[in-house]
Amino acid sequence: MTGNANQGTNLDPWYGSYAARTAGLAASEVRALFAVASRPEVVSLAGGMPFVSALPTELLTEAVERTVRERAGVALQYGSGQGMPQLREQILDVMALEGIRAGVDDVVVTTGSQHALELLAKLFLDPGDVVIAEGPSYVTAITVFKSFEGEVVHAPMDDGGVNPQALRETIARVRAEGRTIKFLYTVPSFHNPMGVTLSWERRMEVLEICRTEGILVVEDNPYGLLYFDQPAPHAMRSVEEDGVIYLGTFSKTLAPGMRVGWAVAPHAIREKLVLANEAAVLSPGTFGQTVVSEYLSTADWKGQIDTFRGVYRERRDAMLSALQEHLPSLSWTTPNGGFYVWLTLPPELDSKAMLPRAVKELVAYTPGTAFYADGGGRNAMRLSFCYPTPDFIREGIRRLANVINGELSLVSEFSKTAPLQIRPAQDSDRVLPPNIG
Amino acid sequence: MTGNANQGTNLDPWYGSYAARTAGLAASEVRALFAVASRPEVVSLAGGMPFVSALPTELLTEAVERTVRERAGVALQYGSGQGMPQLREQILDVMALEGIRAGVDDVVVTTGSQHALELLAKLFLDPGDVVIAEGPSYVTAITVFKSFEGEVVHAPMDDGGVNPQALRETIARVRAEGRTIKFLYTVPSFHNPMGVTLSWERRMEVLEICRTEGILVVEDNPYGLLYFDQPAPHAMRSVEEDGVIYLGTFSKTLAPGMRVGWAVAPHAIREKLVLANEAAVLSPGTFGQTVVSEYLSTADWKGQIDTFRGVYRERRDAMLSALQEHLPSLSWTTPNGGFYVWLTLPPELDSKAMLPRAVKELVAYTPGTAFYADGGGRNAMRLSFCYPTPDFIREGIRRLANVINGELSLVSEFSKTAPLQIRPAQDSDRVLPPNIG
Repeated sequence: MTGNANQGTNLDPWYGSYAARTAGLAASEVRALFAVASRPEVVSLAGGMPFVSALPTELLTEAVERTVRERAGVALQYGSGQGMPQLREQILDVMALEGIRAGVDDVVVTTGSQHALELLAKLFLDPGDVVIAEGPSYVTAITVFKSFEGEVVHAPMDDGGVNPQALRETIARVRAEGRTIKFLYTVPSFHNPMGVTLSWERRMEVLEICRTEGILVVEDNPYGLLYFDQPAPHAMRSVEEDGVIYLGTFSKTLAPGMRVGWAVAPHAIREKLVLANEAAVLSPGTFGQTVVSEYLSTADWKGQIDTFRGVYRERRDAMLSALQEHLPSLSWTTPNGGFYVWLTLPPELDSKAMLPRAVKELVAYTPGTAFYADGGGRNAMRLSFCYPTPDFIREGIRRLANVINGELSLVSEFSKTAPLQIRPAQDSDRVLPPNIG
Repeated sequence: MTGNANQGTNLDPWYGSYAARTAGLAASEVRALFAVASRPEVVSLAGGMPFVSALPTELLTEAVERTVRERAGVALQYGSGQGMPQLREQILDVMALEGIRAGVDDVVVTTGSQHALELLAKLFLDPGDVVIAEGPSYVTAITVFKSFEGEVVHAPMDDGGVNPQALRETIARVRAEGRTIKFLYTVPSFHNPMGVTLSWERRMEVLEICRTEGILVVEDNPYGLLYFDQPAPHAMRSVEEDGVIYLGTFSKTLAPGMRVGWAVAPHAIREKLVLANEAAVLSPGTFGQTVVSEYLSTADWKGQIDTFRGVYRERRDAMLSALQEHLPSLSWTTPNGGFYVWLTLPPELDSKAMLPRAVKELVAYTPGTAFYADGGGRNAMRLSFCYPTPDFIREGIRRLANVINGELSLVSEFSKTAPLQIRPAQDSDRVLPPNIG
């Protein structure tokens, strides 16, 4: 499933021409799952697609109409490589909700916050450089770091997020090996994939560790405003300007199709980010920026975030109660925001090996190994509650429980009789999509 | 003006952390000029902004309304890393106008064709690898190649585009130096910055050279459909599938603010492009793609390209006649399409050194050195006729002639009296924008 991009056959006449870094560009397991998720009969708990249908069309219609009617000259043209000043002003208001005070010059608009990650990797990573990331960590961040020949070393997490003492030990171990650490990549609020949140005390401790060790912090915060019960602690950037690069996005609070995210970075880094942004795309899309800016000007965007919170809270509740009903013997995280629950299987089960069976039972999830650079996560999985309705979530968990219980019986059966016996090929094997398995 | 991005002061605590490639990220001369171009009193012949006001708002309004009303579920969501299938089908129709036959699977939608250049550089360039490019060449292509530690070696051009014999000699010289050539980067139709077009015979000869030498061709074609008198020869991709990566864009035939471009590449390269695209931006913006797709479905897009042709033809004519009137002793190219004229100054003039004086006289252009990786172009400049009205173009050329004639008098004066004398600082020096000079 995770093919090396440099794998190929003699049919590729350019096989010998690729850069060394291209070997790090592998198809992610999440990517392969997109194909499955799109089949209507499958309950997909795999993707991270926001439920954009919760966005009333009227709210956007006005923003779009005003963009075309009143601001076409700007919205259709090339723009600044740093992003539109008016939008950057409005981004300051969004970030203020999480305690961040910044200036309009500190903000760089990017093509989703994903592109900020790509640009940061380009600016900082020489081959072999280490990024410390939570274990597990966001799958496409790992892909990006590897695609610049960076190496991801995980700092272990618990239910309270990254463990500061474990982080200290990880840093010490990497440095003892003579390797260079370029930054810590962290998702402190409603973590992807674990769903957990770093407490204020731990945020301060992590910042203090990184300050002492001279390590830059990349704080990725796509979900911070999507809390269910109480808000997450303020962003780490709210107390530390010089050592934190903060990433935000409108993909989860408005719509990913606009591709509007942003980075807030210390002055010198920000200047390089703008140059890298211009080289990569000349300017981030002005049409999308203008629509987002008009939306923020004319719509009740805070009220709309409240609506999203309600939608996702109900789905989180549906997932947690279904897990309690159907899989009471397993353990899982209890997210107070965001999109994800992290489910731990019994140690004898392999979530990636089990996936074809799950797809046959018409439920999909993301195997835990997708979120580790080092093969970890074998007996865990990410369950997304963001996209399916509560009824589908309950049905999906019911199907998943059948799959897990079936696998457990199989393991138990084999352990009694012939543990190494190969299951004969069955017709049903062939109904799997070719890119899953 | 072209500052090294790694230049910095001790004020940047992360100064020692940047990747080696970041040293190649310099602020381009065109970038600095954007600030000047935006001052209304300056006639800017510098930028490459299309005249989007020639696009009737009604044409776009319907496309945008249909996008929000009927396709919001797709347009707001994440999409395929390769781009929307319907749009890729429509792109086939656009490319057919230049003789290209391809399949919908061959096309990868990118965030403007600029991002295709960035992704190709990422996929192919190891430090020190050579890209052969026309001399002069598109400024931000040079920036991108350098930003991945590639080296640009120019193949000389004449009024017929890149000279095949000179290309052969350049390839031989680079290889004799033991360096690796990764691809030829070329803009064969209505070249940026020279405005010239490669004949069909030369296209065939360049393809044959690259086939023989085993060199991939990156054919960048943003202006091909914007011809004035007769169409350009068919694209090189129309006769060679395996050795050509073709880049197209809607930035010049519709609007750059949408950031929708594309690449057509041989199968194995295309697969890697999709992976690189997903790592960089997850998916190219679905909102912009949907608007472009709706526009192509509902508007007379070919008629609109005819309108653009008429607008730019009139401006080209205004520029050529003004040059004939005000600077008859100089030489310039005569473009049959696109956005640019290339003006050659007398050898004693330096277009970059002259720029502050030009800005003082309220006219801006892009110095020739911006388009060379090796310091060439000192006594040349790019004049853009795409954005200002014909009257402004005539006034701009009149001002430019004053500047050039003033410089020539100064040179002649100094050469009579004291050639090495330094001109004393004047008050007028201080009215220049800080980023020009």
